[in-house]
Amino acid sequence: MGERLELKSLVNNASMSERQAQMWLKSALFKEVLGSDTSHKSLFIRLEQPSGEQGVFLLNKSIFSENNQDIIDLINSAKLKELSKNDIFGNYEVQVDPQINTIQSQLIYPANEKIIAKYRKEEKFIIKETAEDYKTITLEFIQSCQLNLTVCYYIIWVYNLLAKQAEAERIIFEDPDIHNGFILSPDIKWDGINIENLYVLAIIHRRGVKSIRDLTSDDLPLLENIRNKSLAAIREKYDVRSDQIRSYFHYQPSFYHLHVHFVNLKYDAPASSTLSAVLLDDVINNLYIAADYYKKATLSFSRKKSDKLLQMYRDAGRCQE
Amino acid sequence: MGERLELKSLVNNASMSERQAQMWLKSALFKEVLGSDTSHKSLFIRLEQPSGEQGVFLLNKSIFSENNQDIIDLINSAKLKELSKNDIFGNYEVQVDPQINTIQSQLIYPANEKIIAKYRKEEKFIIKETAEDYKTITLEFIQSCQLNLTVCYYIIWVYNLLAKQAEAERIIFEDPDIHNGFILSPDIKWDGINIENLYVLAIIHRRGVKSIRDLTSDDLPLLENIRNKSLAAIREKYDVRSDQIRSYFHYQPSFYHLHVHFVNLKYDAPASSTLSAVLLDDVINNLYIAADYYKKATLSFSRKKSDKLLQMYRDAGRCQE
Repeated sequence: MGERLELKSLVNNASMSERQAQMWLKSALFKEVLGSDTSHKSLFIRLEQPSGEQGVFLLNKSIFSENNQDIIDLINSAKLKELSKNDIFGNYEVQVDPQINTIQSQLIYPANEKIIAKYRKEEKFIIKETAEDYKTITLEFIQSCQLNLTVCYYIIWVYNLLAKQAEAERIIFEDPDIHNGFILSPDIKWDGINIENLYVLAIIHRRGVKSIRDLTSDDLPLLENIRNKSLAAIREKYDVRSDQIRSYFHYQPSFYHLHVHFVNLKYDAPASSTLSAVLLDDVINNLYIAADYYKKATLSFSRKKSDKLLQMYRDAGRCQE
Repeated sequence: MGERLELKSLVNNASMSERQAQMWLKSALFKEVLGSDTSHKSLFIRLEQPSGEQGVFLLNKSIFSENNQDIIDLINSAKLKELSKNDIFGNYEVQVDPQINTIQSQLIYPANEKIIAKYRKEEKFIIKETAEDYKTITLEFIQSCQLNLTVCYYIIWVYNLLAKQAEAERIIFEDPDIHNGFILSPDIKWDGINIENLYVLAIIHRRGVKSIRDLTSDDLPLLENIRNKSLAAIREKYDVRSDQIRSYFHYQPSFYHLHVHFVNLKYDAPASSTLSAVLLDDVINNLYIAADYYKKATLSFSRKKSDKLLQMYRDAGRCQE
């Protein structure tokens, strides 16, 4: 009986906050597009109440259901409008019942300037970091990172994980060797279930290796150990073949304690592209070709307009203003 | 008067083929999902008539219009269903008027096995090509490519372009030098207008350089010439900064005559990611570090399941079956 009452009050709360959000939206004025993504089909907009209260509305087209009945309903309700027809190929704009073609959204209100800035799409710029730039600019940036809260959060998560004070049950595999060992664990962004989006991190036990810049051919045993044992553990636990896993470092990484990303080849993960990711196999290959490759190489990567590292490169005259 | 009649008959033809397609769809049975893409929100399905006639239906969620009135209509028609609410953040499933939330589609009928195979999503596998593999397997594949129709089509397009027998008016820039010169032209996939999707190709005049595998430090003047003059020409003609252009080779390329892709950094172009693309700046850097880098390197790339090159690697025992 008590449970029922609780459920009822939860439902009432939900419908009340739903009604409030609906009313907020109805009286809101459209102010500007903060960003849009035509490949992922999303739109971020800023709204404002007549009172001046701000809100952010994030809209994402939903994915198609692959459930048989949903597909049949979609076909049955489809109304075609022909755009062009050429031989057997016809292009149509299709309208379907709104309940099978929804939009996923997040409405954030009241929103302050910081939240609005977070969703404002920023331009990116490419930095080409020479070995000298790394020493004179990037190293200083890395030191200042220790004071950055987001980075702190990551580093604390990593050290807790390595000390097995957190998420010990999530560890997929561990090689405890102090010099060449590592812990393999699902990335915080992965649910651990959906294999299509498999995303696993190998985090080394050794301290003081900040990124691929610190690697020399002396570290080949570490890198080959990570590659071979991680791919075997992923095969064992998730039944994904080693030639269907993309393994890479980020450069620049989001935190400066060496780690490798292992991601399902099917998954187009954020920051897995050129100018963000460097393949583990390429790093191994480069160190075989030149023992001090990463002490000499120019490495390219992109940064957002408001990024501190970009500003440091501009201040040093090493980037276009 | 004649024009009006023609227009009317065109409209009639359009509405007739539209009605036929609508009827075809209504009587079709859903057979299987050929492929889906959850990041781009698309679904490819196979349909069949009771008579056995096959069809392929390609569905893509449409992008959001950024037109002010369209956004206002979207907000006004939005019906929210709350999924969760936490502090200022609320998640909602949104229903809107179907005419402002359409699906772009292509209906292909009757479809034969070859067309169905084309849209069937294939698994991909990673190949690690050593210098030895290149000589013993890939070179043979490249020779056999000369007989492949799709590749032929590209090569003919390239040679016509270089001979200025086609699309001469589309050339953005030319350096006529036989050894280090090149032609810069919009890629066939780019409309030449939408700067967000800017996609330009630099195709070298010199014959016989098949891919990055053929490059040595002797080619640094060629590569630096392409980089510097192409970025300057793009800046001049399209007003896009050089630090907002991603420049890369494909490896493997789709045709074996050396060319460089120059793409707007904002555009998430197909095959611009790791395991498909190699940054021009990385190639230049690698050749500075080791003159014979591409004669020694192991290069990783991915291929589809039905791909001939993958099969050749498997037959040679250089890939998992």
